[in-house]
Amino acid sequence: MNFDTVIHSGIVLTVNPEFDIIYNGIICIKDGIIVRVEQHNPCEKLPEAAEMIDAGGGIVMPGLINTHTHLPMSLFRGLADDLPLQTWLNDHIFPAEASHINEESVHWGTLLSCAEMLLSGTTTCCDGYFLEDKVAKAVQTTGMRAVLGQGIVDFPAPGVPDPAENVDHARSFVDQWHGFSDRITPSVFCHSPYTCSEDTLKRAKAAASEKGILFQIHTAETRGEREQFETEHGISPVGWLDRLGILDANTLLAHAVWVDQKDMALIVKRGAKVSHNPESNMKLASGVAPVPEMLRTGITVGLGTDGCASNNNLDLFQEMDTTAKLHKVIRSDPTVMDATTVIRMATIEGAKAIGLEKKIGSIEIGKKADIIILDMQQPHLKPMYHPESHVVYAASGADVRDVIVGGDAVVKERKLCLMDIDEILENVNVLSHFIKKG
Amino acid sequence: MNFDTVIHSGIVLTVNPEFDIIYNGIICIKDGIIVRVEQHNPCEKLPEAAEMIDAGGGIVMPGLINTHTHLPMSLFRGLADDLPLQTWLNDHIFPAEASHINEESVHWGTLLSCAEMLLSGTTTCCDGYFLEDKVAKAVQTTGMRAVLGQGIVDFPAPGVPDPAENVDHARSFVDQWHGFSDRITPSVFCHSPYTCSEDTLKRAKAAASEKGILFQIHTAETRGEREQFETEHGISPVGWLDRLGILDANTLLAHAVWVDQKDMALIVKRGAKVSHNPESNMKLASGVAPVPEMLRTGITVGLGTDGCASNNNLDLFQEMDTTAKLHKVIRSDPTVMDATTVIRMATIEGAKAIGLEKKIGSIEIGKKADIIILDMQQPHLKPMYHPESHVVYAASGADVRDVIVGGDAVVKERKLCLMDIDEILENVNVLSHFIKKG
Repeated sequence: MNFDTVIHSGIVLTVNPEFDIIYNGIICIKDGIIVRVEQHNPCEKLPEAAEMIDAGGGIVMPGLINTHTHLPMSLFRGLADDLPLQTWLNDHIFPAEASHINEESVHWGTLLSCAEMLLSGTTTCCDGYFLEDKVAKAVQTTGMRAVLGQGIVDFPAPGVPDPAENVDHARSFVDQWHGFSDRITPSVFCHSPYTCSEDTLKRAKAAASEKGILFQIHTAETRGEREQFETEHGISPVGWLDRLGILDANTLLAHAVWVDQKDMALIVKRGAKVSHNPESNMKLASGVAPVPEMLRTGITVGLGTDGCASNNNLDLFQEMDTTAKLHKVIRSDPTVMDATTVIRMATIEGAKAIGLEKKIGSIEIGKKADIIILDMQQPHLKPMYHPESHVVYAASGADVRDVIVGGDAVVKERKLCLMDIDEILENVNVLSHFIKKG
Repeated sequence: MNFDTVIHSGIVLTVNPEFDIIYNGIICIKDGIIVRVEQHNPCEKLPEAAEMIDAGGGIVMPGLINTHTHLPMSLFRGLADDLPLQTWLNDHIFPAEASHINEESVHWGTLLSCAEMLLSGTTTCCDGYFLEDKVAKAVQTTGMRAVLGQGIVDFPAPGVPDPAENVDHARSFVDQWHGFSDRITPSVFCHSPYTCSEDTLKRAKAAASEKGILFQIHTAETRGEREQFETEHGISPVGWLDRLGILDANTLLAHAVWVDQKDMALIVKRGAKVSHNPESNMKLASGVAPVPEMLRTGITVGLGTDGCASNNNLDLFQEMDTTAKLHKVIRSDPTVMDATTVIRMATIEGAKAIGLEKKIGSIEIGKKADIIILDMQQPHLKPMYHPESHVVYAASGADVRDVIVGGDAVVKERKLCLMDIDEILENVNVLSHFIKKG
């Protein structure tokens, strides 16, 4: 058998159920699929392939999965920081969205985010925003894999001036993209239980359920949200969603900071998933999600960066580092959230969270070849006793050398293969001048 | 006047008292000193210099100051993680130090740390370890600036088999290096109030005071340490040091996690300084130092990474990001620790903390030319509305392009100018094989 691509001479972090690490590993790829994963016997010749990739002793691991993004918001990176949440939203982010989110800005903002994600080792993202059709068309040109949800809120939004049409809009986005591309999976994204009515939530969930696709929703992000639901409905936000029949195995709760034991028991019972966004939750001072407790309860938790405006980057390596350290200090326990747990969250658990665990999230035979290679020949990554430790505690997105999605090279030697980065930066620069003016 | 170096076409973050940001700034350097800082008038010619450095629109800022390191410990990067503190120390770090810290390993470990720090924009560090004379000799070859303290503990240590000689050892290190080099400033480093007796602490402080140099000490790092002092002496660790006459303007307290209002009032009253090490404190689950309260009280607080074994890198950009976000979430207040406050901690406040504020920490006329240039032409740093936001929330050490110390180029286009990195990595690799074997 001749392979399309063979990756060799790397340390393969498979992230299979046993978390096998294969030194001097070989990965053979055919038609975008991983067909062999094994240790290279130095007495034997390497398998033959059209493209041979020498990992140079670097770490070879599954592409990272960012389970919560708002791609076009990279245009607002650093527009306003260090402000009270309501000032930040009402005086900066909402006005910027109202004035500057349109088909053109969504296009360039999405490309900017994809460029950043690919260069820092993220091969799949799960996004929710408006004008999501434009997001999808932009993502498609980049080679990235994505789950994309058209946003639903009960007030006028970019591309949806009449909120009465919000669910229909989301439904037609799903119809258009369902089964259309191997890389793009449509989804439905309700903004939150406090910006969508009971009726909207139920109809939106029904639209997702008809196609068996992911339903995403910000839930229990702030203490204020929880208090509001307890006051108005006598129930937690998670409890409210369950009462409406929203919680099931195709539901992804973003943030889930203010959840208690009862909420967690409900989430597990329904098989719903959680996207943990620690840096955004820290920067906005929202709180710390009880992730060690979630994991103990059996909840599937993936990692996310949230939008650029509240992070302010999309680097999942930094997010892994923060995840591991934050929960240790919050629990006064250095043993929680160890390196392998956190790597799983950024890969296979993220895949489960967005419903793609049969396709991606690990380096195993039969899975899509979504693979990244880290350049370990750098002072800050030496010496190396445990590869998984360096992935979480020492590396950053800038250490990613090569990125492959579905067998296709999208980043080689730190350069994007399918994107014109100069054109993107130039257009983003022009747009930012208008955004700056308000 | 002909200058030695002119840096132009950058966004200069001066970090002067007004935090002036100069777009299209010029910095002129002569004999290692900053002699002009101003905005370039595009109608005028650039000043002439032997070396013209085009910052390419990047951010130009003071070199970062790492106020707490243990340089040779980079050899133990990732040796053991995610363990209870005592297991980590007793079963991994202490045995590794006992078996593997010697003149050779200190030399290569120090060079490895300096390479990592320079490449990630740190131009000055404040270190405490053993065999510090070897540390100093290694640092001297790198071009870095450093305050270096010979370690003192009341048990046998590398290079000091007889603890009765620990203070004499430190004293002779100081004598040897005092006034010897512009770049190396000697210091005295007592490990902690619980590993040094009352007598040792007093004699060590006296040795430092005689020369008017910095006295460093780990203080109130863990809850256990505080409880021990309260039980044994009826006083906090900070109170204990004050009772012994240790606290004054030349005293740097590393960590200071478990300090209360009374401790903070004492620290301010004596003019002592604090080195804040958030990532190490998180990873070891030690706790969160009350930095916003310290700053409100008027305490000078610099930033540090601590040794590599508990971080696991020396990237002060990531440390700034963590500092800003951690305190926001702990205080439930997104306005605390804003970007400019955190940048000051990593530069001018760090300089004050180690007694070098007249020489370094800002880009001002008369100061040493310790300057770094960030490459901002990258997707994760676009667009840019506020340079200070990107420095803290979006950039990482990998974005540093050029580094100048005392007017000398030490990093150009991300390459070390004065160090043979291949030789360092090769020697570190050999040493790590022995360390791995135990």
